[in-house]
Amino acid sequence: MRSFEYYTPTKVIFGKDTHLKTGALLKEKNYKKVLIHYGGNSAVSSGLLDEIKSSLEDAGVSYITLGGVVPNPRLSKVREGIELCRKENVDFLLAVGGGSVIDSCKAIGYGVANPWTDVWNFFLKTETPKACLPIGTVLTIAASGSEMSNSCVITNEDGWLKRGSVKSDLCRPVFAILNPRLTYTLPQYQTESGCVDILMHTMERYFVNIETMEITDSISEALMQTVIYNARILMKDPGNYNARAEVMWAGSLSHNGLTGCGTAGGDWACHQLEHELGGLYDVAHGAGLAALWGSWARYVYKENPERFAQFATNLFDVPWSADIEKTALAGIEAMEEFFRSVEMPTNLRELGLNLSDEQIHELAFRCSFEDTRTIGVFKQLNMKDMEKIYLAAR
Amino acid sequence: MRSFEYYTPTKVIFGKDTHLKTGALLKEKNYKKVLIHYGGNSAVSSGLLDEIKSSLEDAGVSYITLGGVVPNPRLSKVREGIELCRKENVDFLLAVGGGSVIDSCKAIGYGVANPWTDVWNFFLKTETPKACLPIGTVLTIAASGSEMSNSCVITNEDGWLKRGSVKSDLCRPVFAILNPRLTYTLPQYQTESGCVDILMHTMERYFVNIETMEITDSISEALMQTVIYNARILMKDPGNYNARAEVMWAGSLSHNGLTGCGTAGGDWACHQLEHELGGLYDVAHGAGLAALWGSWARYVYKENPERFAQFATNLFDVPWSADIEKTALAGIEAMEEFFRSVEMPTNLRELGLNLSDEQIHELAFRCSFEDTRTIGVFKQLNMKDMEKIYLAAR
Repeated sequence: MRSFEYYTPTKVIFGKDTHLKTGALLKEKNYKKVLIHYGGNSAVSSGLLDEIKSSLEDAGVSYITLGGVVPNPRLSKVREGIELCRKENVDFLLAVGGGSVIDSCKAIGYGVANPWTDVWNFFLKTETPKACLPIGTVLTIAASGSEMSNSCVITNEDGWLKRGSVKSDLCRPVFAILNPRLTYTLPQYQTESGCVDILMHTMERYFVNIETMEITDSISEALMQTVIYNARILMKDPGNYNARAEVMWAGSLSHNGLTGCGTAGGDWACHQLEHELGGLYDVAHGAGLAALWGSWARYVYKENPERFAQFATNLFDVPWSADIEKTALAGIEAMEEFFRSVEMPTNLRELGLNLSDEQIHELAFRCSFEDTRTIGVFKQLNMKDMEKIYLAAR
Repeated sequence: MRSFEYYTPTKVIFGKDTHLKTGALLKEKNYKKVLIHYGGNSAVSSGLLDEIKSSLEDAGVSYITLGGVVPNPRLSKVREGIELCRKENVDFLLAVGGGSVIDSCKAIGYGVANPWTDVWNFFLKTETPKACLPIGTVLTIAASGSEMSNSCVITNEDGWLKRGSVKSDLCRPVFAILNPRLTYTLPQYQTESGCVDILMHTMERYFVNIETMEITDSISEALMQTVIYNARILMKDPGNYNARAEVMWAGSLSHNGLTGCGTAGGDWACHQLEHELGGLYDVAHGAGLAALWGSWARYVYKENPERFAQFATNLFDVPWSADIEKTALAGIEAMEEFFRSVEMPTNLRELGLNLSDEQIHELAFRCSFEDTRTIGVFKQLNMKDMEKIYLAAR
C-alpha cells in the first residue's frame, strides 16, 4: 500500500443561488481588483454575468472583465489576460464558466505571479511555478474538476500543442461556487461529455497495477456508479436538479485527489492520447476520451485482468467467473455500452474524425513527444503502442 | 436536496515513517516556538516522542513539551497549556496522540488566541472564537477524526461536564501526519472502540430525515463497510498494516465533512447521550457509543424506517422485504452483532456500568441541560425520551 498526500484547501459552496454570494465572499478577503474571466455568449445571454457583476458591485468589490475563452483554451488568451492583470493590478481571478475558463485563469495566475519566466515553460515542464494569483470559480459545467484540482491544460496555437501544467497546489482555487442550476442550459452533448470526463478522472486513478486501498476503490466505484446512473437520467430529463447536483459534486470529488489516495498518481495514458486529438482537431474533451477508452482498455487489460474484472463486477454487476479475462472484457463492453446509451462516441469515426494512416501516425508521434517518452503506468506505452491504440480506435 | 459547504484545508501526509517529516514541515512554515502536547507514557515508552523531538531538533525548530492529557481531556490541563503557551510565546501546537490530545490542543489554541474571554465559554457556546493558534497532529489512535475536524470536546472537572465546542474552521489542523504503524501498540479495546467512533461519525450524519445525496450515501456506506471489514481483521491480526491504514484513513474521512455533504448537519443524539456517560463515568468514547446506539436506533427508527432499511440492505446485505420495519430492525441487529464480534458493548452493563433509576434520571437531566433542550434531528428527543433510551440501554 502506497503512501500519499492529500490536500484540498478549496472551500466549496454548493446549492441553489449560491453564485449570488460571490461578492460577499470576495469582500471578506479584501481583494483590491478582481478579473472576471469567462467564455462565450452563454454567460452573457443567460444573465449569469450580470448577476455576478451585481453581486460584486453590491459588495463594493472592484472588477474588470475578460471574455472569449474557447474550449481547449488558448495560450494567446492567457497572454492577453496576463498583460491585462499587470496593467490593472488585478489581485484575484474569478472564473465564471467551466474547465476551460478555470484553466485559463490558472495559467494567467501563474503568468502574473511568476514574471521571471514565460508561462508556457510551466506546460513544457521545464520550469516550476513559485506562486499563483488566488482564484475563485463559479462553475457552469460539471466536467473538468478544475474547480478543486492542482492542474490545468492549455493549447498553444503555435503548433497546436495541448499540454498539461506542472501539478502544483498553488493553483488550487480558494473557493468553488457550485450551483447545479447553472448547468441546466448546457447542450446534451456537453453534459454527457462532462460525465465521461468525470468518469475518466476516476478511472485514470483507478486503473493502476499496485495494491490499492479498499476505501479508495470503493469510494471511486460509488462515485462512478453515481455518475453513470445520473448521466442516464439527464438524457431524458436535463432539468433534473438532483441529477445535476449528483454529477456536479462527483465532478469535483473525482479530481480533487480523493479518488487517488494510495494509487501513486494514476495512469493518465487516455488523457495524454486525447490531448493530441484536442490540440489538433478541437474535439470535446470528454467525447474524445470516450472515443479512445475502449481501445486503450482492450490494449492494456491483460497486464492485470483482475483489476478490470473487479471494475466489471463492482460497477456493472457482471457475474464473477473463473475466466477472469472474459469478466474483464465484459466490463469494458459494459462501459462502452454506457457511452453509447448517452450518445457518446466509442471510436474516432463516431467522434467525427476520419483519419488517414499518416494522421494516426502524426498523433502517436506528437503524443510520444517525437518518440522520446512513454505514457501510462498500468502498461507503459511507447510510440508504437500509442499508434496501435489510435488505429484500434479509428 | 440541501445546500452545503465543504472545507477541508488540512494537509494529510499518510504512510509509513511519515512522522519523521514533522520537523521539516514545521520549518517550512517558520514557526518560532512549538508546544509538543501529548498524553501518557505510551508516547514516551514507545520512543515516538523522542523521534518527534529529534525531527524538530534536526530541523532547528524550537519547542517545549506538555504531557499528561487523559482520555476525556480535562479543562484544567487546557488552562495549564494556555498559561504555558503565553509565558513561552508558543506560536504552534503539535498534538502527538489521539483525539484527546488533539482536542486539548484545539482548546489551548482557542484560549491563547482569544484572551478577551474565558475558553470554557466556547464550550458553553455563549461565545464564538475569533482565532486559534495553528495546530498540527501526529496521530496515534484512529478514532476521533479530530485531525481534520472543526470541533473538539473537553471535560470540565467542575461538575464533570463533557461539552463540545462551537464548530469552527479555525481549529482545523494545518497538517495531519497519519502513520498507521503508530497505532500497532494500542490495546484491542481501544482499537475497536476507535472503529465504533469512526462508524458513529458516519452514522450521525447518515441518519437524517431529509432527502440526501446518493453520492454522499454511497461514500458513507463504502466507508462503513471498510471499517467493519477491517475492524474484524484487527481482532485477529492487530499488526496488519493494511487494515490499520484503511481504518485510519476512514477515521479522517468520516469526520472531515465529506460524509455530511447534503445531510444538513446530521443527528448527533448518540454523541450527546454518550457525552454524559463520558463526563460522569469516564468510559471510552467509542465503547460508550456502542452501548447506546442500538437503544437509540430502536427508539427512533419508526420516524423513517426506509432509511434504516437502506442501511440494512446496503451495509449488511439484509434482503429487502415488503415489511420495511422488519428490514430496518434486521439492520440494527446486524450492527449490534458486529459490535459484539469486536467485543464492544451493546448496553450499559456490558460497558461496566450498573446504574440505578436515579443515576439514569441524572444522565437524562444533564443531557437535556436540566430539561431545557432537545437533541437529535432524526427524531427530536426531550428529557423523557433521553431517559427512555438510557433505560433501554441499561
